[in-house]
Amino acid sequence: MEVSTGRSFLFRVDEGEEIVGYLTRFLEKKGIMLGTISAIGSIRDPVVAYFDRDEGGYRNIALKGDYEVVSLTGNVSVKDGKPFAHIHVALGDQDGRLYGGHLVSGETFVMEVFIQELKGGVLERKPRENNLSLWDAEKLED
Amino acid sequence: MEVSTGRSFLFRVDEGEEIVGYLTRFLEKKGIMLGTISAIGSIRDPVVAYFDRDEGGYRNIALKGDYEVVSLTGNVSVKDGKPFAHIHVALGDQDGRLYGGHLVSGETFVMEVFIQELKGGVLERKPRENNLSLWDAEKLED
Amino acid sequence: MEVSTGRSFLFRVDEGEEIVGYLTRFLEKKGIMLGTISAIGSIRDPVVAYFDRDEGGYRNIALKGDYEVVSLTGNVSVKDGKPFAHIHVALGDQDGRLYGGHLVSGETFVMEVFIQELKGGVLERKPRENNLSLWDAEKLED
Repeated sequence: MEVSTGRSFLFRVDEGEEIVGYLTRFLEKKGIMLGTISAIGSIRDPVVAYFDRDEGGYRNIALKGDYEVVSLTGNVSVKDGKPFAHIHVALGDQDGRLYGGHLVSGETFVMEVFIQELKGGVLERKPRENNLSLWDAEKLED
Repeated sequence: MEVSTGRSFLFRVDEGEEIVGYLTRFLEKKGIMLGTISAIGSIRDPVVAYFDRDEGGYRNIALKGDYEVVSLTGNVSVKDGKPFAHIHVALGDQDGRLYGGHLVSGETFVMEVFIQELKGGVLERKPRENNLSLWDAEKLED
Repeated sequence: MEVSTGRSFLFRVDEGEEIVGYLTRFLEKKGIMLGTISAIGSIRDPVVAYFDRDEGGYRNIALKGDYEVVSLTGNVSVKDGKPFAHIHVALGDQDGRLYGGHLVSGETFVMEVFIQELKGGVLERKPRENNLSLWDAEKLED
């Protein structure tokens, strides 16, 4: 879907916030229904998830302690009439090893976030046969 | 090179597509010759590559099974007169461990892609002595 | 903080440059005081860091050899009156394993960089009790 760019936001989330909940509240407060998210920082006790196609569901991986947020990449679209943030993260431990997946939750230590609002269309997450809520796929007619 | 922003696209690639080929067809169809790419999702049997300077070539690493696409970061420029996508990925396995490198290929399960077209100049990949096809380097005169 | 988009830059850094120093000089030369940075490429002998909250400081991790830069994600703001680049990286070794953290230094082999200047406000890094230099946190009043 072709879109246009809307508002842009660059900010730091305060220490001690649950990041996914905070970002969702930010989106709701600003009325952002479509966009992209990128962040770097540091997080405590993150929970990430891996989607297991055979089991047809997410498998949670709870990490303990503090991790560098090496990348946080996501998008914003509509689910059940509200803004929904879909976020993946790469997380570094004290030895520089990386872990990650779909971000479920985590407590911010430092989090510097860039959100680019997009406009000009609606992408809605709808339940699919594979147990995921997905946008309609883009068709590339030849 | 200073550039300006062109069109923006946010979309989902259908399940079962070879991702690098799909993105290249998307760029060709839309006529995007310069830009940036970012995506998250899930991929099957990805092949990534590591450039070995001593051997002067890429070394392929074939991963088996399904991986979370924790980050997919790339750019678009011109090679042999056509749009060329240069893409790197971070991939998470079922235990949250990350793997990655230069993306060679992979079959999409879910892939949510943001492409930002850029305008105002041409970056062309040309063969270099190091066996890579690279843009001219930016010079920072002091 | 809501911001607007300024100039955009897409370019390759020449081989043999220390990447953090090069990007800082680029920002100074162009007068970019606020923005985002994204890059992919390949780097030699990178040093990354992990912030240890208990010790209240960064712990450096020196990696030896060549690594794919799977993602380089950062932002630009003001520190001591000058542009300051805060950068995190994910790095892939020859077997596709990923390492990373806060980027301290590294010598470019290939580096393809996108910088998006932002305008409309100032974010300044100020020393905090936790030994980090941080922007004021965004407040989400309900």
